[in-house]
Amino acid sequence: MHFTSGKRLDTEVSRGGVLEREFMLGEVPGILWTPASAPPAEAPLILLGHPPLGLDKMYPRLAARARRVVADGFAAATVELPGSGVRPRLPVIEEARADLRRAMAAGEPVGDDVVDRLVLPLVERAVPEWRAALDALLALPGIGGPVGYSGGVISVGVRLAVVEPRVAAAVLFAGSLIPRAVFEEARRVTVPLHVLLQWDDEGNDRQASLDLFDAFGSEEKSLHANMGGHTGVPESAGEEAGRFLARHVRRGRSSRAT
Amino acid sequence: MHFTSGKRLDTEVSRGGVLEREFMLGEVPGILWTPASAPPAEAPLILLGHPPLGLDKMYPRLAARARRVVADGFAAATVELPGSGVRPRLPVIEEARADLRRAMAAGEPVGDDVVDRLVLPLVERAVPEWRAALDALLALPGIGGPVGYSGGVISVGVRLAVVEPRVAAAVLFAGSLIPRAVFEEARRVTVPLHVLLQWDDEGNDRQASLDLFDAFGSEEKSLHANMGGHTGVPESAGEEAGRFLARHVRRGRSSRAT
Repeated sequence: MHFTSGKRLDTEVSRGGVLEREFMLGEVPGILWTPASAPPAEAPLILLGHPPLGLDKMYPRLAARARRVVADGFAAATVELPGSGVRPRLPVIEEARADLRRAMAAGEPVGDDVVDRLVLPLVERAVPEWRAALDALLALPGIGGPVGYSGGVISVGVRLAVVEPRVAAAVLFAGSLIPRAVFEEARRVTVPLHVLLQWDDEGNDRQASLDLFDAFGSEEKSLHANMGGHTGVPESAGEEAGRFLARHVRRGRSSRAT
Repeated sequence: MHFTSGKRLDTEVSRGGVLEREFMLGEVPGILWTPASAPPAEAPLILLGHPPLGLDKMYPRLAARARRVVADGFAAATVELPGSGVRPRLPVIEEARADLRRAMAAGEPVGDDVVDRLVLPLVERAVPEWRAALDALLALPGIGGPVGYSGGVISVGVRLAVVEPRVAAAVLFAGSLIPRAVFEEARRVTVPLHVLLQWDDEGNDRQASLDLFDAFGSEEKSLHANMGGHTGVPESAGEEAGRFLARHVRRGRSSRAT
């Protein structure tokens, strides 16, 4: 892992400012946000998930989320998803995406096989990369465990919550296009979950989101449904998610791994 | 309206303490909680709803909710429901309740007519009483508008939100036994709503709660589903509901009536 740039962000929410550093982990670009002035103790880390639209396109929203997370006393980081942004396209996913577009344009239902071909290869490739990023990030001075995961492709979040013992809690964004296999995998999630659902998101299959929430094995899980359309998560809902992470991802709080 | 008793509650959450006064409004007993030391401005009022089990039985939970509400800068009040507590039983409701018990004991589905006979007479009688209580309470020194409604029988909360323009926002507890007519009435609710649902409450019809949430006409509505069984609302969920009221029920914020 090596840093390729660093700058200090002006911010209203984080006293003392935020240091933003781009990095490369092998072929995978990423961004790390930390308090500009080193805090007295190691900061727990929040991984910021995102849809597969490329870090460049997602940057404004990611940076806004990172500012809030750092203001809450965390470090924040994200990495580019396989096949997105500057990374080489993945033919299997591109073909599935073309099939998805065709089905939607024709007003046809999206078949299970299209969803599987679109999402499962992304999950298979992304999760090991996020775990490798965790290895590198937690080795940096000033960053410690436990780790929270927030947002992005919900199937990636589910897999990460199942296989990565350093993830102590997760904020998940309910979304459509969930492979059948992920509903089964959801039963194996045990960490506290805070699930955000945009109730009036017409591009979303609300019943699938409710079914997935029901499937989660976590003893502590909560669903927060709001109005405002696909990207209109109310500010108060973002703040609630922040408080959830602050309650569950704290230094000295033992994650499952310790 | 006349006060029949008054005492000061010790409290950890409300600096300065809480004054609790029992009152009678005609034949209807009620309780008012206010800051023990008069605040500089009039406090907005939160009406505390409750299930029809009698104020005596509900007192510990109501007093705990009132302490928190007063700590947030509100006055809080509740009145006994028709047919509950020290008030005379209502034969129509008692008969419906017996039919409900019979159906449940026999493992039979509860018919729409039973639900209607159980809930609608309660709504018809309770809502005018709560409105009369509002008239009396808002005339007291130190208490002003707007008004929030929190909890209790959801059908009562829906009717009150529709017909009472002084209600500026409502926290509703999702529950079963919702008459068909209430789903229609829900479309006419326009105030901001914060709906709490216990996801793993086995005595609750979850789908009915989701359908009712969907029916609400309010542009701003949010659903907060948690684990913990019928009475196990997590503390963090109670705090979120308090923050919702603090955002929407504020002095100087115009309610629909002004």
